[in-house]
Amino acid sequence: MLRADYTDQNCSIARSLELIGERWTILLLREAFLGTHRFDEFQRKLGIARNVLQTRLERLLDAGIFKRVQYQEHPPRYEYRLTTKGVDLWPVVVALLQWGDRYTAPSGPPVVLEHKGCGGALDGRRRCDRCGADLEPWDVSVRPGPGADAPHAPSRTAAAQL
Amino acid sequence: MLRADYTDQNCSIARSLELIGERWTILLLREAFLGTHRFDEFQRKLGIARNVLQTRLERLLDAGIFKRVQYQEHPPRYEYRLTTKGVDLWPVVVALLQWGDRYTAPSGPPVVLEHKGCGGALDGRRRCDRCGADLEPWDVSVRPGPGADAPHAPSRTAAAQL
Repeated sequence: MLRADYTDQNCSIARSLELIGERWTILLLREAFLGTHRFDEFQRKLGIARNVLQTRLERLLDAGIFKRVQYQEHPPRYEYRLTTKGVDLWPVVVALLQWGDRYTAPSGPPVVLEHKGCGGALDGRRRCDRCGADLEPWDVSVRPGPGADAPHAPSRTAAAQL
Repeated sequence: MLRADYTDQNCSIARSLELIGERWTILLLREAFLGTHRFDEFQRKLGIARNVLQTRLERLLDAGIFKRVQYQEHPPRYEYRLTTKGVDLWPVVVALLQWGDRYTAPSGPPVVLEHKGCGGALDGRRRCDRCGADLEPWDVSVRPGPGADAPHAPSRTAAAQL
């Protein structure tokens, strides 16, 4: 939770930031949209300290943005899945991605989002620039873009999996 | 700037957060979209420490998101205006607003964005839900919403002024 002086505002933007404005949280959401669900996988892909990851995940569970789902019985093991409330953060994640692609990616976007099956790109309103459809996270696949060969390039082509 | 371990990623989202992910920065952008341009006005509306505000504004100037514009000659005085790069953050601000309205505003949105002249509301893709137009910041006015009478309600009805 951010400081009280920050959230002492009747503002939906401030209240959103209260829940997702902490360091790493948006990148955790990014990973979840890319299909990451398990603690060790989040830890490895983000390269953050385990205690920080634990705190962030717990806060996102408390906020109802992630839910814990058991994927193994003996011993019991759980993974983290986005709830509807979490999936509804996709516009925030895409808006940050698109702005970053435009202004911080001189070699081109590290990853490209595509309309599955159609191959069109997402426009600034998350519509397919080829067929015009309004796109949702499950309509989109992710592949390396022209900036992918820069250092620390993501090495996967995983489709967004919720 | 966030820590190196955070930005050591070839990711447009991480790079965007590097520029705008700091505490208060998004709310500074919110104020700019609402028509605030001067230091004292930012300070009064956000209620943050002057040194923090100064640091945030300088970082946004360095990032090319704000520009300084002289509005008085004797003595010289400057105000802060969004550049095109800054205006292009509108989708991020609106996405945070809309998610917050949906999930953190039980009394309803504190403010409502409307298509100027038409009166339609913004849908999740920043289109007018009445006439269907793709809306830009200058097409939109802001008025108090049903949640505006909660404590700390914004008291103004200023249209977005860039």
